[in-house]
This record gives sequence, C-alpha cells and structure tokens, in this order.
Amino acid sequence: MTYCVAIKVDAGLIFCSDSRTNAGVDQVSTYSKMYHFGIEGDRQIVINSAGNLATTQSVIAKIRKDIKDGADISLATLDSIHDAADYVGEISVTIQEKHAQHNSNVSFEASFLLGGQINGDSPAVMLIYPQGNHITTSKQTPYLQIGESKYGKPILDRILKPETGLDTAALCALVSMDSTMKSNLTVGPPIELMTYATNSGYMKHSVFEADNQYLRELTKSWDCLIVEAFLQLPPPPQN
Amino acid sequence: MTYCVAIKVDAGLIFCSDSRTNAGVDQVSTYSKMYHFGIEGDRQIVINSAGNLATTQSVIAKIRKDIKDGADISLATLDSIHDAADYVGEISVTIQEKHAQHNSNVSFEASFLLGGQINGDSPAVMLIYPQGNHITTSKQTPYLQIGESKYGKPILDRILKPETGLDTAALCALVSMDSTMKSNLTVGPPIELMTYATNSGYMKHSVFEADNQYLRELTKSWDCLIVEAFLQLPPPPQN
Repeated sequence: MTYCVAIKVDAGLIFCSDSRTNAGVDQVSTYSKMYHFGIEGDRQIVINSAGNLATTQSVIAKIRKDIKDGADISLATLDSIHDAADYVGEISVTIQEKHAQHNSNVSFEASFLLGGQINGDSPAVMLIYPQGNHITTSKQTPYLQIGESKYGKPILDRILKPETGLDTAALCALVSMDSTMKSNLTVGPPIELMTYATNSGYMKHSVFEADNQYLRELTKSWDCLIVEAFLQLPPPPQN
Repeated sequence: MTYCVAIKVDAGLIFCSDSRTNAGVDQVSTYSKMYHFGIEGDRQIVINSAGNLATTQSVIAKIRKDIKDGADISLATLDSIHDAADYVGEISVTIQEKHAQHNSNVSFEASFLLGGQINGDSPAVMLIYPQGNHITTSKQTPYLQIGESKYGKPILDRILKPETGLDTAALCALVSMDSTMKSNLTVGPPIELMTYATNSGYMKHSVFEADNQYLRELTKSWDCLIVEAFLQLPPPPQN
C-alpha cells in the first residue's frame, strides 16, 4: 500500500509520501513515490503515485521520455497544472488498458497527485483517478490524498485552512503520515516531503529515513501529547 | 455505513455503536445497532451489528425467537461467549445463503460484535465475520471494530491497554466514534454506549442524542485539545 497527501494553502504547496510497496506481506520493497519535474524560472511540478507499481513506473517513464524527446505535448510544454493532469490521466488510462488486454483478473489501476506552479499561474494540486479524470482542492478541503487515506484524515480535517502557514501544513502532513504508519504496516519510511512556497520557483525536498532523529522525536511527542490531551477530556456522565 | 467498537479491559467491557444506516446517500435512516440479552444472575450478552440491514435484522429476530421458544440451543442456554459467537455465526451464514439464492449481485454480508459474561466465566468479546468464523481480543489488541473502522483506530491504538480503567475505555470509545463521525457522513448519532464491569452482572446502557450536552462538549474539547497538542509539536527542520 501507499499513503500520499498534497496540501494547497495560500502560502504554497506541500507533498508528502511514504516509500513502502507491497504485493502480499512477503513482497515488501522500498520505492520512492515522489517525482520532481522542473524548468528553472518557468515551472515546478511534483507527482506522487499510488497503485500498481508497473503502471506508475510506466507512466513516469513515458512522462520523462516525452520531455527528453522534446514532444509537442509534455510536462515541459503544457500551460497549466489542469492540462498537465489531463495529460498524465491520458497516459495512465492508455497504459492500464494495454496491460488489461492480456489479463483481466489483476488490477492495473493507479492514482496520482500532481501539483506545482507553471509560468506565474497560481499554484495548484490535482488528484488523478485511475479513470484519468481529476479533481482539485477547495477552500473547505485544502488537501488531496491517495492510497491508505483514512487513518491520517482526521488531523487534516482539524488543522488545515487556506491561511495555514507552510511550516504548519508540512507538520500536519507529517503527523497525518505518522498516524497512518502507526495503524497500517504497509505504509512506511523513508518519508519524503516536498515544500513549495508560492511564486518561489523552488521545490525543497526533504527525506526522513526510519531512524531520522526529527521523525522519531515527532512520533514520540505526538504519542505523549495525544495521551495528555485525552486525559484532559471531560469524563463520561455517571448516570 | 456503521461504526461499532467493543473493548475488553481487565475491569470490564465497553460497547459503542452509532445509529446511521444508509443505502445510497438519500436513503439514510436511524436504527439502533445495539442489542442486549440478559438473564439476571446468570448472563449478560450484547451484540452490535454492521452490514446488510435485512440480514442483521433477520439474525436478531432468529436469536430472539430461539430464546422465546425455549430452543435447546440459544443465547439463554449456551455455556460460553465462544459458543454464543459460533451460534450467531451459523445463523448469519444461513440467512446470507438463503438471500443470495435469489440474487447474487447484492452483498448480503453482515458482521457482528458479541460479548458479555456467562455464569461466572471470564468476560469476553468476539468479532463474527460474514463467513461465520470469529476472533477475540488480545492483551496487545484489547478491542474489536466493525464497519467504518479506520478513522477511529489511531486513538484506540494509542490509549487502550488491559489495565485501562472502564471509564477511560468508555471515553476512548466515544473519542474514536467522534473522529469517525467527523470524517465520514454515513456514521452518525444517536451514539449508544454499553458498559459492563467484570462480575457485576449488570449492563449499563447510555444513549447520546445528536444534541446531547456531554457529546457536544466532548467534541468541542477534543477539537481544541488536538489543535493545542499539535501546536506544541517540534517544527520540521529548516534544511
């Protein structure tokens, strides 16, 4: 399984992904699910992937090939994040259909988070479904998730607003990831974090390995703080 | 959808269930999913149900009929919670198979939590799967869930231990329910809580309606406390 979350606040964008891939419990591997495409001074785009690993790797390979070949339509030429999501959605559907021709019993489905900023356009984030269509964030829901999304959703609902600062949004993504890892074995480190400040033209990439001191401190602090918070709740009525 | 959680600590048992039932978003109804069967001085048994409402209602009707008819095997005669779970599992499978004969496109599946104490035996809780088999709690995992279980799992993992007090376990069940209701529309009040102190022979039943003052206070306090806890976390490293 996988867990990725992308957040859009006024101050910028946050992407956070785990790195565990599994096909059954004894085929567990580590793969990055964070892909960065940038042209300095022109565009910064990030993609997170979830689902069938063969599909997601083929989609990323095709995206890279189109850029390298100087294709008319590629992540280097498209004018908006919306069009970029359309383009990736079409590639994804084509690859899934190709594989499904030979075997209809396996799911070749994949989902993607795609976001960034192109040519001074506003920053944006999209969730691309296996069917190739996509949705974006709203003021009320300034985040999108793919993969094992339920364990980490409550903290996002409680904290995130459009005016939330970029550091706070990054912290919220890491706490959401922490809750997911605690409850689901198939989501695990290294944790990757990509931070983009609006109009900065620069994607900051951080990687937290399993033994990362900050990640361990965060996990421990959150454990203690949640228990402390819980102990302050009003006790249930006695009658 | 539904969310029910049953907790077994040394001090006793807790059952907590929501009351929302839906078939699509415009067929939303309120049904209790908390069923109590007791013979004073002999046994106290609680059942929570999730899944196809026709199946769960038929299962409960059959259980009641067997008791009323004085059948050789019923919740009034069986010697252990384990045997009671076997008995309910068999009824559930029989009813599902009967309905599936006429329509194989619909899922008639149902799950149950069953627990209590019989004749001075130890208290126990079981989760009965749609296939009729069942599992119980352990020291490491002193709770069982059915229905929409993921949103409310992290708090159970953080708080519950065998030595947790009964009031704390009840509070933990309510917080778990609160997180689930916040993230999923198809889980909703009234919230029912059943509390059983080991060897007490008495099930205490509480109902919290949507406008219940304690429930609203709990939701508000937890919202504030989580945000306060979050704000105390160490900020992500800046490089």
